[in-house]
Amino acid sequence: MLEVIAPLVITNTTKIVVLSLDGLAGLPRPETGRSELETARLPNLSALAAESACGLIRHVAPGITPGSGPGHLGLFGYDPLRYQVGRGVLEALGIEFDLRAGDVAARGNFCTVDGAGRISDRRAGRIPTEVCVKLTERLRGIRLPGVEVFVEPVKEHRFVLVLRGRGKGGALSGRLSETDPQQLGKPPLPVKPLTPKAKGMAQRVNAFVAAAKARLADAAPANMVLLRGFDQLPRLPRFPETFGLRPAAIAAYPMYRGLAKLVGMEVLKTGGTFAEEVATLREHRDAYDFFFLHYKDTDKAGEDGDFDAKVAALERLDGFIPELRALEPDVFVVTGDHATPSVLAAHGWQPVPVLLWSRYCGADPVNQFTERACAAGSLGVFPSHHLMPLVLANALRLTKFGA
Amino acid sequence: MLEVIAPLVITNTTKIVVLSLDGLAGLPRPETGRSELETARLPNLSALAAESACGLIRHVAPGITPGSGPGHLGLFGYDPLRYQVGRGVLEALGIEFDLRAGDVAARGNFCTVDGAGRISDRRAGRIPTEVCVKLTERLRGIRLPGVEVFVEPVKEHRFVLVLRGRGKGGALSGRLSETDPQQLGKPPLPVKPLTPKAKGMAQRVNAFVAAAKARLADAAPANMVLLRGFDQLPRLPRFPETFGLRPAAIAAYPMYRGLAKLVGMEVLKTGGTFAEEVATLREHRDAYDFFFLHYKDTDKAGEDGDFDAKVAALERLDGFIPELRALEPDVFVVTGDHATPSVLAAHGWQPVPVLLWSRYCGADPVNQFTERACAAGSLGVFPSHHLMPLVLANALRLTKFGA
Repeated sequence: MLEVIAPLVITNTTKIVVLSLDGLAGLPRPETGRSELETARLPNLSALAAESACGLIRHVAPGITPGSGPGHLGLFGYDPLRYQVGRGVLEALGIEFDLRAGDVAARGNFCTVDGAGRISDRRAGRIPTEVCVKLTERLRGIRLPGVEVFVEPVKEHRFVLVLRGRGKGGALSGRLSETDPQQLGKPPLPVKPLTPKAKGMAQRVNAFVAAAKARLADAAPANMVLLRGFDQLPRLPRFPETFGLRPAAIAAYPMYRGLAKLVGMEVLKTGGTFAEEVATLREHRDAYDFFFLHYKDTDKAGEDGDFDAKVAALERLDGFIPELRALEPDVFVVTGDHATPSVLAAHGWQPVPVLLWSRYCGADPVNQFTERACAAGSLGVFPSHHLMPLVLANALRLTKFGA
Repeated sequence: MLEVIAPLVITNTTKIVVLSLDGLAGLPRPETGRSELETARLPNLSALAAESACGLIRHVAPGITPGSGPGHLGLFGYDPLRYQVGRGVLEALGIEFDLRAGDVAARGNFCTVDGAGRISDRRAGRIPTEVCVKLTERLRGIRLPGVEVFVEPVKEHRFVLVLRGRGKGGALSGRLSETDPQQLGKPPLPVKPLTPKAKGMAQRVNAFVAAAKARLADAAPANMVLLRGFDQLPRLPRFPETFGLRPAAIAAYPMYRGLAKLVGMEVLKTGGTFAEEVATLREHRDAYDFFFLHYKDTDKAGEDGDFDAKVAALERLDGFIPELRALEPDVFVVTGDHATPSVLAAHGWQPVPVLLWSRYCGADPVNQFTERACAAGSLGVFPSHHLMPLVLANALRLTKFGA
C-alpha cells in the first residue's frame, strides 16, 4: 500500500485531524443490550457521524486483539503485520527513552526466586515504583563488554534494559530468546541466540542476568530479573516523506508520543488533560497539516471494567467535538486504536467505529457513532492501514493512478 | 485471481452484458444532500436494482483515484495494481493506433521555449488540433537508426510518439526517464536510460528531440516537444481464453475501444450515440457471449462539474434499460470505471455502485441504484477484479473449486 500511495502524493494546504479514542469500541452490557457508545449521550458525535462517511476498522486481522503498538501503527498507515515492533522497543518508547537505531531493548520484570533459584512470584509482589527506581540504580552499575548498559524503571516491577553498541563491535542483534519461563517453580531460562550472529549478545545478556542476581541477592522479594521481548527499532518508512505531510502528535501519555516519534512525527509539548491537548492543537494549527490527537480515558475505563466510567469518558469527549470542528480541519477522523470493552476489562478484537468527515466524504446512512450503526456505513469494514490513503484522498493530496 | 479462475472456466451458451457508465459515482450536492444518482429519476435502474445483487466497487485501493486504464482493466478482471499500463500506451490506445508488442510509445506535448531554450509554456498555448496535425507531419520525417518512427496527433498540443524496432536490432526498452521538467523556466531534460538495456533507446529519443527542435524552430508557440510516459504494451492474459468467452466491446470513444482491444476483445463498429451502441449490441447478440457496453455522457458531465447535466445523462441512460433487458442477457451488470463527482469536476476515489442481475444473484435489500443504497447491498464493497468471477459464476460458466 505505501509503495502505491507514496508516488501519488501531491502538495496541498489542507489540514487533517485524526482523533484516536483509545480502546474506543465496546460491547453491550448484558442488562441493557447496549454498548458503551450506545448508552452514552453523544449529540455532537452523532451529528458529525450524520455528515461523515462511517465504517469499522479492523486493525490487524479478524479475531486479533491489537496491542497499542500495532493499533496505532495501523492508524498511521503502516500495515501492522508487516511492520512489527517488539515489546522491548514499545516499553522503551513508553517511557520516552531515547532509543537509537541498533539499540537492543528488552522488557524486564523484577521477580522473586527461592533458595534453589526457582521463581515464586513473576512480579515480585508488584513492588512500589519507588523500590523499582532504587533497584534499577543498582543494576546500572553492571558493565558488559562492547556495549553501554541502560536500565530504566517503568512502573511497579517493570523496567527496560537497553544495550547500545560501543566502538567497532559491529551491529548488535536482538534475536534472543526470553528468560521468563512463564511458569512458577522453574528457574529463569538462559538467553539463547536465535541466529548465529546473536551469540555475543546472548553471552552479554546472560552475564547481565548473573550480575543482576548477585546485586539483588538481599533485595527480596525483588531478588531476580526476567527479560523478554528483545528487539531493535524497526525500519519504518518515515511518515512526513511518505505522505507529504508536516505531522504533529498531541498525546498526554508517553507510549503514544513514542509511537508517533517512531514514524517521524513531531511530538508537541502538551499538558496532562484533553482540554490542554485541544489547546495545544489550536495553538499549532498553522504550523502543521496533520494532527494525531490522542484521548486516553476511554481505554482506562474499559481496562478497569468500568462500563459507566467509559460512558462518562465518551460523554466528556463528545463535549470537545464542537471546539475541534471550529478549528475547521479539511479532514476530521474520529476512531480508535483497538476495542477495550468494559465487559472484557481488557483490549478486544472487535472492529472499531470510524467516522471520516470532509467535503468529499460522500453520504452514508449512518447518523450515530456506534459499533452497530457504523457497521452499515459506506466505508465498510476495512484494515486500519487503509485509513491514511482515504484521509489523503479526502484532503485532495493524492493524484490519479494511471492515466 | 486469474490463476484461480482460468482452470475453473467451463463452456455455456449464456449471454453477459456489462454496461459501464463512465464516471458513474458522484457526491451529494451541498444544497440538497443528494448525489447525482439520488437526484435523477431512474425508474428502470431502480426496478433492476430491486431484482439484482448490489454493492460498491473499489477499482484500485481505498483512497486511490483510478484513471480510465486501471478503471477498465479492473472491470475486465485484471488487478489494476498488477497489470499497469503506461501513459504512452494509453495515449496510443486512445487514438486507436495499431500498437504492437515491443513498440515503445510516449505521450508528447508541443511546448514553447524561449531563446535560451527554457520552457515558457508546457502546452504551447493549447494550439488548435489542425496545427498539431501539421506539426506532427513535420516530425514524421525524422529518421532514427534501427527503428521506425511514428508521430500521431491527438488533440490540441498532444501527440503520440511510437518507436518500432526494425530488423535485428534486438528488443527495444521503454525504461526511459521523461523530458518534461514539469516546471516553467527550465529547459527540457535529456532522456536517461533507467536500465542499462535502454541506453540505445535513450540515444535515439534524444536524437529525436534534437531533430524535432530543429524542425520546429520557426513554429512558435509550438517550437519544442516534451515527452513522457514511455512504455510498451503490457503482457496481459487474453480475455477470451482466460474467461472462455467470445467478447465484444461497443464503445463510441477510442480510448475504451483501445482498452478492450488490449485484452483481446473484438471491437465492434458502432455509431457515436448510445442508441447506436445499443443497436449494435442487438445486431450482434448471437455472435458473442460477452458484451462490454460503454456510456460516456456521465463522465463528461462530471468532468465539467455540471451536476444537472450528469443527472440528465443518468436519466437518458435509464431510458435504455428496458431495451437492454429485452435482449434477455443471462447476466446483466451495470457499474462504472471510476467516480466523477460533479462537485470535484474530476475523477474521484469514491467506490462505484454496481448491480448484478441474474437468475441466481440472490436477494438483497437494495431497491435504488445509488451510492448510499448500494453500500448496504449483498455484494459489499469489493475490488473491481473480483467482478468477472462473480459474473462468470452467475452465467454458470465456472465449475467447482476442489472436488
